[in-house]
Amino acid sequence: MRVRKKPWAASYIQEHQEYIVLEPKNYLGKWQSRFAQEQPLHVEIGTGKGQFIIEMARQHPEVNFIGIELQESVIATALRTFLEKPTPNLQFVLTDGGDVDEFFNQHEIEKIYLNFSDPWPKSRHAKRRLTSPGFLKSYQAVLQEDGSIEFKTDNRGLFEYSLISFNNYGMNYEYVSLDLHNSPEAITNVETEYEQKFSPKGPIYKLVAKFSSK
Amino acid sequence: MRVRKKPWAASYIQEHQEYIVLEPKNYLGKWQSRFAQEQPLHVEIGTGKGQFIIEMARQHPEVNFIGIELQESVIATALRTFLEKPTPNLQFVLTDGGDVDEFFNQHEIEKIYLNFSDPWPKSRHAKRRLTSPGFLKSYQAVLQEDGSIEFKTDNRGLFEYSLISFNNYGMNYEYVSLDLHNSPEAITNVETEYEQKFSPKGPIYKLVAKFSSK
Repeated sequence: MRVRKKPWAASYIQEHQEYIVLEPKNYLGKWQSRFAQEQPLHVEIGTGKGQFIIEMARQHPEVNFIGIELQESVIATALRTFLEKPTPNLQFVLTDGGDVDEFFNQHEIEKIYLNFSDPWPKSRHAKRRLTSPGFLKSYQAVLQEDGSIEFKTDNRGLFEYSLISFNNYGMNYEYVSLDLHNSPEAITNVETEYEQKFSPKGPIYKLVAKFSSK
Repeated sequence: MRVRKKPWAASYIQEHQEYIVLEPKNYLGKWQSRFAQEQPLHVEIGTGKGQFIIEMARQHPEVNFIGIELQESVIATALRTFLEKPTPNLQFVLTDGGDVDEFFNQHEIEKIYLNFSDPWPKSRHAKRRLTSPGFLKSYQAVLQEDGSIEFKTDNRGLFEYSLISFNNYGMNYEYVSLDLHNSPEAITNVETEYEQKFSPKGPIYKLVAKFSSK
């Protein structure tokens, strides 16, 4: 997501470091210390303005959530929305989510969410897609053996690519929807801002997959 | 496909046995003898009124095609259409295509086409879907090691089911389209009668997958 630089963002983030991590490598092996209690860890890579992860944290107090976002102005908005009514089970991280294996321990995460990731439509940019094999390898390293990836997008090309990428990597599909908002699972679906805005234009695709076949 | 019984069908089939096989087990190990020359074998399971397989046979004289269909009245129509302008590389078989492993030898087939198979939408009928694991096992037996399945449908539920079924069976995806008629591959797509009639109502899905990862 590209947005204009917000002049207030940098200082706002600096002032609220109890809810946002700026140097994630400092927390390698210590992420649970950021939360009120030790609980399963779910991570959203590319958390945007935070609507999804904030709502998930409110619905699931039994899970600790981390929302990772690369863009300062975007995560500052997420942080501000969250702080209107904070919960003790959500932390933000300002960094590149593709590098998760550099600041999480092996098998530390129960679930990774990829929501409406940049489609990088040109073939020569395929390696930048967050569902390409190089990133899957990072996710596999930090996910629990039975952990899963939940991926949503409205981009047909990205979803076609990702179905093949996950399959060819050897992942096991748990769930596929080719029109999530017209599926029985729609009632429990938590929408992102983007999803809410663009779903009237076409179907939302969803894939849940695991690295193990358990 | 359900159709009315055609009174002329049975006798028409009897009279044209040079192009249609009624007892496929008699040809176990001898399918190539039905054709003008020995060539790679492609089989469509559920060939309907034959539009797809007849056109494929015309476009690909270097391949021997077999169209299998269970319903007499339907395959009789396919046969009649074909005989308006027959080619030496297409044979029909009146039988249940789910039993292919009973009348083909191991690794005899290069490609299997499943086009717009019956979706059997109720969960308790899942085993009847031609993309369920029991049938995949039969296809694996008769396909060459590097052989592939090409599957098209307009039924979202069946395609979602099949994506999971093929994946969980350990098959390797080669190609996925979630809107074939709006994909670059549309120009080489050969349509079935059903596809021509119903594609304006929604997307046509296509999956190509192999049992080997070669």
